[in-house]
Amino acid sequence: MIMHAADDQAQTRWTTEAWYQAAWAHEVKAEPLARTFLNHDVVLFRDADGVAHALEDRCCHRATPLRLGAVTDLGLQCGYHGVTFDGAGKCVLIPGQEAIPGQAGVRSYPVIEKQEIIWIWMGAPDHAEGSKLLVDFPWNDDHAHWPHLHDMFEVGCSYQLLIDNLMDLTHIPFIHRLTIGGGNQMGQVDARMEVTPTDTGVHYIRWMENIAPPPTYIKGAGFAADAMVDRWQEFEFVVPSTVLQWTGALEVGRGAVENRHQPGGFSLRLFHGVTPKTDTSCYYFWTPLNGYKPDDDDATKQLFDEIGFTFQEDVAFLEAQQSVMSAQPEGPLVAIKHDKARLQAEHALRRFITERSGSR
Amino acid sequence: MIMHAADDQAQTRWTTEAWYQAAWAHEVKAEPLARTFLNHDVVLFRDADGVAHALEDRCCHRATPLRLGAVTDLGLQCGYHGVTFDGAGKCVLIPGQEAIPGQAGVRSYPVIEKQEIIWIWMGAPDHAEGSKLLVDFPWNDDHAHWPHLHDMFEVGCSYQLLIDNLMDLTHIPFIHRLTIGGGNQMGQVDARMEVTPTDTGVHYIRWMENIAPPPTYIKGAGFAADAMVDRWQEFEFVVPSTVLQWTGALEVGRGAVENRHQPGGFSLRLFHGVTPKTDTSCYYFWTPLNGYKPDDDDATKQLFDEIGFTFQEDVAFLEAQQSVMSAQPEGPLVAIKHDKARLQAEHALRRFITERSGSR
Amino acid sequence: MIMHAADDQAQTRWTTEAWYQAAWAHEVKAEPLARTFLNHDVVLFRDADGVAHALEDRCCHRATPLRLGAVTDLGLQCGYHGVTFDGAGKCVLIPGQEAIPGQAGVRSYPVIEKQEIIWIWMGAPDHAEGSKLLVDFPWNDDHAHWPHLHDMFEVGCSYQLLIDNLMDLTHIPFIHRLTIGGGNQMGQVDARMEVTPTDTGVHYIRWMENIAPPPTYIKGAGFAADAMVDRWQEFEFVVPSTVLQWTGALEVGRGAVENRHQPGGFSLRLFHGVTPKTDTSCYYFWTPLNGYKPDDDDATKQLFDEIGFTFQEDVAFLEAQQSVMSAQPEGPLVAIKHDKARLQAEHALRRFITERSGSR
Repeated sequence: MIMHAADDQAQTRWTTEAWYQAAWAHEVKAEPLARTFLNHDVVLFRDADGVAHALEDRCCHRATPLRLGAVTDLGLQCGYHGVTFDGAGKCVLIPGQEAIPGQAGVRSYPVIEKQEIIWIWMGAPDHAEGSKLLVDFPWNDDHAHWPHLHDMFEVGCSYQLLIDNLMDLTHIPFIHRLTIGGGNQMGQVDARMEVTPTDTGVHYIRWMENIAPPPTYIKGAGFAADAMVDRWQEFEFVVPSTVLQWTGALEVGRGAVENRHQPGGFSLRLFHGVTPKTDTSCYYFWTPLNGYKPDDDDATKQLFDEIGFTFQEDVAFLEAQQSVMSAQPEGPLVAIKHDKARLQAEHALRRFITERSGSR
Repeated sequence: MIMHAADDQAQTRWTTEAWYQAAWAHEVKAEPLARTFLNHDVVLFRDADGVAHALEDRCCHRATPLRLGAVTDLGLQCGYHGVTFDGAGKCVLIPGQEAIPGQAGVRSYPVIEKQEIIWIWMGAPDHAEGSKLLVDFPWNDDHAHWPHLHDMFEVGCSYQLLIDNLMDLTHIPFIHRLTIGGGNQMGQVDARMEVTPTDTGVHYIRWMENIAPPPTYIKGAGFAADAMVDRWQEFEFVVPSTVLQWTGALEVGRGAVENRHQPGGFSLRLFHGVTPKTDTSCYYFWTPLNGYKPDDDDATKQLFDEIGFTFQEDVAFLEAQQSVMSAQPEGPLVAIKHDKARLQAEHALRRFITERSGSR
Repeated sequence: MIMHAADDQAQTRWTTEAWYQAAWAHEVKAEPLARTFLNHDVVLFRDADGVAHALEDRCCHRATPLRLGAVTDLGLQCGYHGVTFDGAGKCVLIPGQEAIPGQAGVRSYPVIEKQEIIWIWMGAPDHAEGSKLLVDFPWNDDHAHWPHLHDMFEVGCSYQLLIDNLMDLTHIPFIHRLTIGGGNQMGQVDARMEVTPTDTGVHYIRWMENIAPPPTYIKGAGFAADAMVDRWQEFEFVVPSTVLQWTGALEVGRGAVENRHQPGGFSLRLFHGVTPKTDTSCYYFWTPLNGYKPDDDDATKQLFDEIGFTFQEDVAFLEAQQSVMSAQPEGPLVAIKHDKARLQAEHALRRFITERSGSR
């Protein structure tokens, strides 16, 4: 396996004993896709039967990256001298040679494909306990009611800084003050917030009751021009690095606080999958799901474009924040009231890492 | 405060106990301006009253650089979650929170605005003794007689290499052989030179007596076609990093050597302010002042453009010189006769640093 | 001399006690040419008499790289203050100063110009034993029978990885599968190969007997459409870093295996000179010599272009391979049957380095 220089230090920042999102299912094809997870270079590919695999991105013959190779009927073939490995990393062909030495082979990583996501297990293969630790996000499979498009950004910050960003929405009226966070800054800061620890992370919900819906909501949900709504922002962090979001609004009087599962109104889900690449970079997989105009392809595309633009505003801040933190890793920081969900998420993540530190 | 990796080594190369040019006054506005001085990241801004301030470029909440924020009535507001600091670095607003913890705040640096220059003090704030240590350059305030434009280059060499360049003008017929140094190389090398130590650095003057003026001088000062002149190049280095230049010529017989303060002739001043950014980079603030055609805006602009072009020729050499020195910091060097002023400037700078080393 | 950071480690990877190709003769002119050999920065130039020289690329006065200077009648003049050095590195001019101090001077490196190649000796100058250790390649001087064009690529891999590439031609049907290696992959892998150690490296020849010639050969040599040929690929590695290639084909029945020195048929020579730049980069000097249509300038140019394009395919692999090896220098590797010539070349190189390690 290939370990980058900072790997030792990283051991306290993440655990390999977890499933991380490696790709969207549609990204993995019958050709190599190179990614780096937790400082290890990996190549993903789909074999002749359509099954996804993940191998160490280094041929055991001459250390050539397998990403430069090609998928054949036998598996993934190195592009330099043709040495070929099956999905389990076993060497199955050495051109010009009959016998294959026992030590020929590359590391393979367990992979699961579920709900349009390819998950990877970077830890001890025999600890990959199957789907029971996997995040469940059934809406990815329900294109009829929740149409959506997937995307991924490579971001120059640690995966934790990106999760932090999602745990404190008071950034919206500041980072996004020129876009989605425009208007009443303090009104957005002072929403009623409930934070609840869960077995696998933390849940929070922010309520803005009896307020005018924002233009996007009016346009999306068809609220009357003078309607007042009860509006919510619900987020769940699931260790180690997934955030599930449900945002919406119902007209005042429909009892949104008691029951949000009602037809009509505005309803939007967001899947956020964050995977460490290196200590100071991550992959940010994201999907907005259109629950308010499911039959309108243009609305789905427009939502996707707007969310992507908004996330780029966050990226600019996250990368600048990372560069300051890297320059002065021990510098003092002062927590504030709105860090409550962030601190609980951090606590849940540390506990999760510590629990698994013995098994690494 | 944010210290870059090379900071320890730098302590022998500069002193923080001095005023350095941080910016031209016009550069500092009601929006953040990020610069790095002596390896520390700083953000400059002008508050609602028009007063310039300098803060550590790192929010105490989540280490976001304040350069991404905005100036409000209260001070400089972080662009991430809205935490706000006044010009003294005191935290004056935490959105969503009434009480402000005592430890919330960022470092502020003393700043002085004088003669179109913003000076900064990077050392102990109580040692900033006011303007008595400040360079005096009254011509910056005299646009009527000395019209001028300011500029700044970021240069990839230590501030000392840039000062060295100004202390030995025999580089002109070589570096600038295709521009201002064209023509008789050895004639330019062999000017009569007087070097004199001062309390705050070194002064030198080079005389070329009874020679034909160069085309720029003829054009600028309106010398007769066959006029002969006494020409001077006067430079003063002031610790730690300012060089003041006065260059000119008067017709032979007017007694230039005895008294240069006469009307007419050619007369040009140059302000050179050099501030360490990191160990191997600096800010080069420069201003040519047109003393020969003060009523001619085009002449002032043309002078500015020509000087800027000439300095870029120096920059190419300085950055190459720095890269060689960085690759072999202990390599032997051989001083020559024309290093006299450079060596005295170096001596004055070392003495200045040593005198202040106890107070850091 | 200027040593880059990795120099200590490099001592085990190469010897300075050898002649390396520094340039093609036509590249060295009456102006400075900067190159880096074995981690040392060197400047090449041709003096007023047309003789090529190599000096340390650092002026002894202020460490300015001499590459920014100019060639004068006296030698190479530094572009900063005009200090000048002759081809032996002796300081011959300090502008403004009569006496030249004894310690003024820069290191010079022995240089030989032969057969259109400039060779350089980076070791102890008194060990440069003249041409007896030089590779002999007389075809470079024979433009009538072997017309050719020279080129050089800077490649981001160690010189050894590039030599490895030339020692195992089974890469052709893989790296070059879309160009020269198209068609029957395993047929190209399974050519008959004879590997023979030599006093100065290793020799191998691959024979493909009684096969249809490839389109390039038919076009180049004018074989009949249904001709069958005996085809060979002959390579000789000469320590430390030259590879001489002769590739060709004769019609079946002409006895190519017994005697390839016959008129007609297809015949192509390639000179490969590889010189370490740093531990992870090298200069790749290459020349294809047209032995099949010596009177056809277009054919010579077309051959040159095709070879250049093919080598770029190799470069992509070599640089990727280097980056993987740099990330995990101690990673395990598994040798295969077709590594035979590569391993013998590696053995010869190690022996050559070890024999010279006492004299460094």
